[in-house]
Amino acid sequence: MKACGLVVEYNPFHHGHIHHIQSARKVSDADCIVAIMSGSFLQRGEPAIMDKFHRTRAALRAGADLVLELPYIYAVQSSALFAKGAVRSLHEIGVQSLCFGSELGRIDPFIQTVEILQSTQTTYDTIVKAYLDKGLSYPQASERAYHAVGIDDIDMTQPNNILGLSYVQAMKQAQLPIEALTIKRIHNHYHDDAIHTAIASATSIRKELLLNGLTNRAKQSLPKSTAEELLQYAHLANQWHHWEAYFPFLHYKVMTMDTQQLATIHGVDEGLEHRLIQTSKKATSFYDWINRMKTKRYTQTRLQRMFVHILTNTTKTDVHQAISQATVPYLRLLGMNTTGREFLHKQKKQLNVPIVTNRKKNIPASFELDERATNVYYSILTPDRQQSLRKQEFTGPIIINDSTSEAW
Amino acid sequence: MKACGLVVEYNPFHHGHIHHIQSARKVSDADCIVAIMSGSFLQRGEPAIMDKFHRTRAALRAGADLVLELPYIYAVQSSALFAKGAVRSLHEIGVQSLCFGSELGRIDPFIQTVEILQSTQTTYDTIVKAYLDKGLSYPQASERAYHAVGIDDIDMTQPNNILGLSYVQAMKQAQLPIEALTIKRIHNHYHDDAIHTAIASATSIRKELLLNGLTNRAKQSLPKSTAEELLQYAHLANQWHHWEAYFPFLHYKVMTMDTQQLATIHGVDEGLEHRLIQTSKKATSFYDWINRMKTKRYTQTRLQRMFVHILTNTTKTDVHQAISQATVPYLRLLGMNTTGREFLHKQKKQLNVPIVTNRKKNIPASFELDERATNVYYSILTPDRQQSLRKQEFTGPIIINDSTSEAW
Repeated sequence: MKACGLVVEYNPFHHGHIHHIQSARKVSDADCIVAIMSGSFLQRGEPAIMDKFHRTRAALRAGADLVLELPYIYAVQSSALFAKGAVRSLHEIGVQSLCFGSELGRIDPFIQTVEILQSTQTTYDTIVKAYLDKGLSYPQASERAYHAVGIDDIDMTQPNNILGLSYVQAMKQAQLPIEALTIKRIHNHYHDDAIHTAIASATSIRKELLLNGLTNRAKQSLPKSTAEELLQYAHLANQWHHWEAYFPFLHYKVMTMDTQQLATIHGVDEGLEHRLIQTSKKATSFYDWINRMKTKRYTQTRLQRMFVHILTNTTKTDVHQAISQATVPYLRLLGMNTTGREFLHKQKKQLNVPIVTNRKKNIPASFELDERATNVYYSILTPDRQQSLRKQEFTGPIIINDSTSEAW
Repeated sequence: MKACGLVVEYNPFHHGHIHHIQSARKVSDADCIVAIMSGSFLQRGEPAIMDKFHRTRAALRAGADLVLELPYIYAVQSSALFAKGAVRSLHEIGVQSLCFGSELGRIDPFIQTVEILQSTQTTYDTIVKAYLDKGLSYPQASERAYHAVGIDDIDMTQPNNILGLSYVQAMKQAQLPIEALTIKRIHNHYHDDAIHTAIASATSIRKELLLNGLTNRAKQSLPKSTAEELLQYAHLANQWHHWEAYFPFLHYKVMTMDTQQLATIHGVDEGLEHRLIQTSKKATSFYDWINRMKTKRYTQTRLQRMFVHILTNTTKTDVHQAISQATVPYLRLLGMNTTGREFLHKQKKQLNVPIVTNRKKNIPASFELDERATNVYYSILTPDRQQSLRKQEFTGPIIINDSTSEAW
């Protein structure tokens, strides 16, 4: 039984993701599509619009066979560490290939670029540092450094290319026997702001949902199953999630910490603790705070991740302990269909890390960070809604049957 | 110029407090009434109904001459430490007497009781421990112990008697040259629930205010000046303060901490950290949480103080550092009238601790705890209201002129 892995966030699951699953199935010739998905908080340092359980159900209903959760400790990290956690998880579960979307749609440039980077890493780092010191922003500095070391094939200003490259690089570094595959993305920009067609960016869909709700405009880019899960979640939670809802907690948290305590938090580096205390006195909203914190050196994404770690109280020690391990600490199973179940059954005997299916069983210590992140994720809801949603952590994986799934 | 000190919370200032000020002036023959008042959070582990600045103004308008803030580190503590901070502050500013309200209205029983306690402290402690181990509640155990060592004159189940005794005890222990005075209280019970006459308990007034607003029923127990300050504060803050408004922050805070971190907080003793984590999963409101935490050993007041320290992130180290000092770290001046100003001017040269008048000047390091408490106190408001109210910390003391005060 062959399996192909996808690294996803499904925030929310849209038509582009169906294209991804279907194309991956085709190019990989796999029987089982395994998605490794971020949980409550995402790589760009944002809360997911709805919880991981409803996003899992949407993914299964639209074609994924098995959904695993990428541990928090890897999910809210820069692309290198994020990719490291994702490819290692996919290796542990036993996929033969990994397929990602890219603008180019050809894998060779990625493999060549990784080779160039490997031999020029020191030069690359020196150039980035020099440009940063000259006052360029991090994205500007790294773009110039890529060109300087001879990387021209891939547009390294595209987040999807950076992520794709990180997967290939992480697999090569760990010498994992996974084939890298890529398919061409069928819309233009990751951050495109508006919904134009049935294929729209997740960013534009979230914007529409958070501003105007589940409008026809939003629906045109979403499978019916996602629309239903979004409604179901809104019914349970009475809202979808976005940063501003967490601002009072974040602000309260920083207000009760001194610079010393702030400096223990992962991502609060190079004196950012002082800037945090200063700006906290004037910030009137989350994005106002981001704007007050932003400098050329610190991108919005970098700062957002730092804010997630402050919110979840994730310390440098927490991260150091977790990532110093040779492999991922566990595989958290969020859901599966009949195919996924069959695949899992076949793999079970040869797994080297525990499968966590239900919060009550086989819980490695490091799982506490995920539980904390999920608790924080739900804190913006009323106490009774928090409690009923938290129970999902204890009820085991979501299991759906392919043939009846759309009738759910 | 003679001064008499009062230890107060003014939560809110009512007719009983006018009686206190006027009687104290009479029995002490003092020219200046100095009130040492708790700031944002109070001795029983509760947020003040309105902020310290509006409570100061109400006190000055109704007859107090000088209002100082009792530092947070003493304000939210059991009676012994609370009294220690209060009498030391009053000694530093230079009062000749201290006057408190009591049911008995005679000072001799208090002085005799302190003498008995001094010679029987070990016996008293042993008896309390024995009764606690038998399963009695702390108040029950201490009441029996008082009787056992021969203390019968004072009803030690009355919080005001306990506090009065603590002042006398603290003054004696530190050998302060302050005369203890007491006046008879003119209403029955500290915790009386309903407003019956023009003299009502602060508890009953708060209950009426928080449930029904500034009704005629509430107004009958309040000077016009307090009613005006309450309205003015509600206008600025859009609410009055009570524990339930802080519940989401408190709950979020505990959810992000592990037992080890919780155990560093002042008041989280004897394994309460485990109980906190357990009960946090089920608590749906602040008072629901208190009920889940309560045992015979831990009174509600004790737990409420612990919750205040969790909310403000006050560690055992913070408290230990502050109270190990021989004297109070500073005197925070909140407000004064012409008489208070004249008194302060006369005393200034002989003060041994700094006077903090304005957050920008003369700030001792330990003042950070008060600033943090005030920041937390305002966190339940919208960001713009928080900011404008926080500015009061920087604008120096409130100064009113006796003759024009009621025209404010």
